[in-house]
Amino acid sequence: MANDWATFGADLHLELRGPRLRAGLMDALREAVRSGRLEAGTRLPSSRSLAADLGMARNTVADAYAELVAEGWLTARQGSGTRVARRTAPRRTAPSSPQPRPAAPGTRPPTAPRPGPPAAPAHNLKAGTPDLASFPRADWLKAYRRALTAAPNEAFGYGDPRGRIELRTALAEYLARARGVHVRPGRIVICAGFVHGLMLIGEVLRGRGVRDVAVESYGLDVHAGLLTRAGLGAPVLPIDERGTRVEELTDPGAVLLTPAHQFPLGGALPPDRRAAVVDWARASGGLVLEDDYDGEFRYDRQPVGALQGLDPERVVYLGTASKSLAPGLRLGWMVVPEGLVAEVVAAKGAADWASSAPDQLAFAEFLGSGAYDRHVRAMRLRYRRRRDQLVEAVAAHSPATRVSGIAAGLHAVLALPAGTEQDVLRAAAWHGLAVLGLNQFRRPGVNPDLDGLVVGYATPPDSGWQSALRTLCRVLP
Amino acid sequence: MANDWATFGADLHLELRGPRLRAGLMDALREAVRSGRLEAGTRLPSSRSLAADLGMARNTVADAYAELVAEGWLTARQGSGTRVARRTAPRRTAPSSPQPRPAAPGTRPPTAPRPGPPAAPAHNLKAGTPDLASFPRADWLKAYRRALTAAPNEAFGYGDPRGRIELRTALAEYLARARGVHVRPGRIVICAGFVHGLMLIGEVLRGRGVRDVAVESYGLDVHAGLLTRAGLGAPVLPIDERGTRVEELTDPGAVLLTPAHQFPLGGALPPDRRAAVVDWARASGGLVLEDDYDGEFRYDRQPVGALQGLDPERVVYLGTASKSLAPGLRLGWMVVPEGLVAEVVAAKGAADWASSAPDQLAFAEFLGSGAYDRHVRAMRLRYRRRRDQLVEAVAAHSPATRVSGIAAGLHAVLALPAGTEQDVLRAAAWHGLAVLGLNQFRRPGVNPDLDGLVVGYATPPDSGWQSALRTLCRVLP
Repeated sequence: MANDWATFGADLHLELRGPRLRAGLMDALREAVRSGRLEAGTRLPSSRSLAADLGMARNTVADAYAELVAEGWLTARQGSGTRVARRTAPRRTAPSSPQPRPAAPGTRPPTAPRPGPPAAPAHNLKAGTPDLASFPRADWLKAYRRALTAAPNEAFGYGDPRGRIELRTALAEYLARARGVHVRPGRIVICAGFVHGLMLIGEVLRGRGVRDVAVESYGLDVHAGLLTRAGLGAPVLPIDERGTRVEELTDPGAVLLTPAHQFPLGGALPPDRRAAVVDWARASGGLVLEDDYDGEFRYDRQPVGALQGLDPERVVYLGTASKSLAPGLRLGWMVVPEGLVAEVVAAKGAADWASSAPDQLAFAEFLGSGAYDRHVRAMRLRYRRRRDQLVEAVAAHSPATRVSGIAAGLHAVLALPAGTEQDVLRAAAWHGLAVLGLNQFRRPGVNPDLDGLVVGYATPPDSGWQSALRTLCRVLP
Repeated sequence: MANDWATFGADLHLELRGPRLRAGLMDALREAVRSGRLEAGTRLPSSRSLAADLGMARNTVADAYAELVAEGWLTARQGSGTRVARRTAPRRTAPSSPQPRPAAPGTRPPTAPRPGPPAAPAHNLKAGTPDLASFPRADWLKAYRRALTAAPNEAFGYGDPRGRIELRTALAEYLARARGVHVRPGRIVICAGFVHGLMLIGEVLRGRGVRDVAVESYGLDVHAGLLTRAGLGAPVLPIDERGTRVEELTDPGAVLLTPAHQFPLGGALPPDRRAAVVDWARASGGLVLEDDYDGEFRYDRQPVGALQGLDPERVVYLGTASKSLAPGLRLGWMVVPEGLVAEVVAAKGAADWASSAPDQLAFAEFLGSGAYDRHVRAMRLRYRRRRDQLVEAVAAHSPATRVSGIAAGLHAVLALPAGTEQDVLRAAAWHGLAVLGLNQFRRPGVNPDLDGLVVGYATPPDSGWQSALRTLCRVLP
């Protein structure tokens, strides 16, 4: 009954190599299950050996397995390895059809739902993307038209690697006003998003002989992976109930933080630790990389200003339009200490990595005309309403579930009873709800003592929000 | 009278590091001369020692020196090193004011013009940029508006690292039709220009264990530099009167070529050599990187089709909108052999380097609506007219000067008597004409037996073309 793995591998001609191909591997595995090439019960090779076969990083394979387990395609049991899920009836509920069916009010989700894989998820609460349906097309187009009409001819040529001066000027005004960033246009470098900025900084740091960039206990794999590829170590800082223990920083080097809104746990770094990390940087000659990914969105009190304001010579501030407008624009910015500007510009220039000049000019116009402020205000109201609805709905359907990280941002963390995260994720997948668990964001070696869902409540369009929320409540314990 | 270099360096606090900062170094040096901090006659440190001081590549410094010599700021004489130019009267003509003055018809340029540095050049015939004033703003805006209006919401999210399918589909149609590229959308990867594409390919090749990417005897420094930074060797292929001697390729590896229009010399690789390089790639398992930077612009007969058509599995085709539309858009494309797609996508995805989705959609609309064809046709007519005027004017003013590389592209090479290139460049700088010599494009170790100007006749706006051409004729021998 179980297929021989070697045959499967040969059949697929998997040519996926390198990092971040988890998604591709997952597609290949899903397709193999869907087509029957991988039968139920088939034991998969260990992530280590598949990684070696495919020339992938082991983590990539392990993450793909974990996500497919979470989606119900695979099962993982201690001592028995990872296997293709059997299409047996679930233990507690037994839907008669492979389609999700509406649950009666108050129905609790199955703890081991039938793992028959659904089609594309009907609901998306994965964190990291704003509501794309709310992109302000008309206002953006107006800004683009004005910018394109007013642009000097030289704007269409090869430009300053730092980016257009019009945009850097508009951003300097905005960041000082809205985020308390200490900034002048000459210290801003436009980039194509946070990852691009981090890549450039990583290259500069390695060039300076820095060996490590410390990271938080929870965060995005892709960031740590990028540092590793840049030849830097990414030691993990411990965490406690007040957030990342920056006082554990001792060696010189750099640290990557999300001080305004820890991603994904959601807290703000308390004032004494903000001071402590800057003191460390001053004393050791270190550098703080501030990932201010959603600093605009704070609901219950004034936004926490940028850490960068405490010491502009010791903090690189990184921001992006990916959460406030749209990731598809690929617009980000760095505010760089004076002494690093030339090196960052050299790294960027060497790679010829520039954002489109018309886009930069359009964004400058969008900022300067007040359209950005208006959009952020409108979205803040909309997201706050969703957040309030999330908190109310969870309180009504699952009173034991604590919701945290809600003062700011586009996502919240729903704490789950220990050991239940995978089950809840499987139930979510069964109900056509895409959502990720804390496990997805936990750095290697961090004690897996937190179970929870990271709920991106900004992700769905308005038209899909209520049904996504209802589905979420259905799968909570 | 001569300043001490150490003081100068300390005063400037030059923090420029890394490659491609030639322009920054040149600015700093010009400013130091302009302000008087570097007095006439001051001997500069050797390029080797300044490079060491600044942590720059020696070539960067040497190139900056050479360009400043060409511009008249510095002088270089054997045995006496590089010095700040003296503002002495020229040997053969003695303008009474430091401003260029109109020359009488038939006047020959000074062979050692007064090197008093002019302000920003009044005329620009540097190759590499199209006429930016002719960017089709109205048509582009129309395409952008249509694209933005029609875009699905998901277009504003994080996208496929290969780029938008709408653009890849439109490009596949265009490249097959206009350039004879063998292509389907799944093998196209959108990038932010040629350098970005080359960087990605370089990374993939290094990952595959390739050691060398051979380059042509003449080309852009930045391309060879990028390969070197990617950890690859860049051995130089010899050249003869029929172009690059690809038959000298023996080792497996890769080769970077400009087969349709050698940059900057201007010839097309003859058919037998096109066949030979593909045969080499097949026999050795090698790869050809085809830089088709100006393939759209061919005047006297049908365009030379892409080499890629000869063997799509052995040639990576690289194109860009930088010459046909504008570099400021940062839009380029690669057509990748089937077996390389996954690796190129992984390299691109890992770096999160994506072009703006609205721009990609706008370009797809621009291509699909026929606006691109219309623009290229209009520009081809305009550039051909300029080329004809260049040929006529040179024949009239300097009958001994041979003009070559004129069948295609946006530039021509004007051959100069041996040993006169630097003098002519200095005369050009004196007359406010920015133009580069062949020396600028010669790879290290290549016999410097060709003197010539590389004249980018597409560069000026229509309003500046005639005066640029007159100035060029004035400085020819």
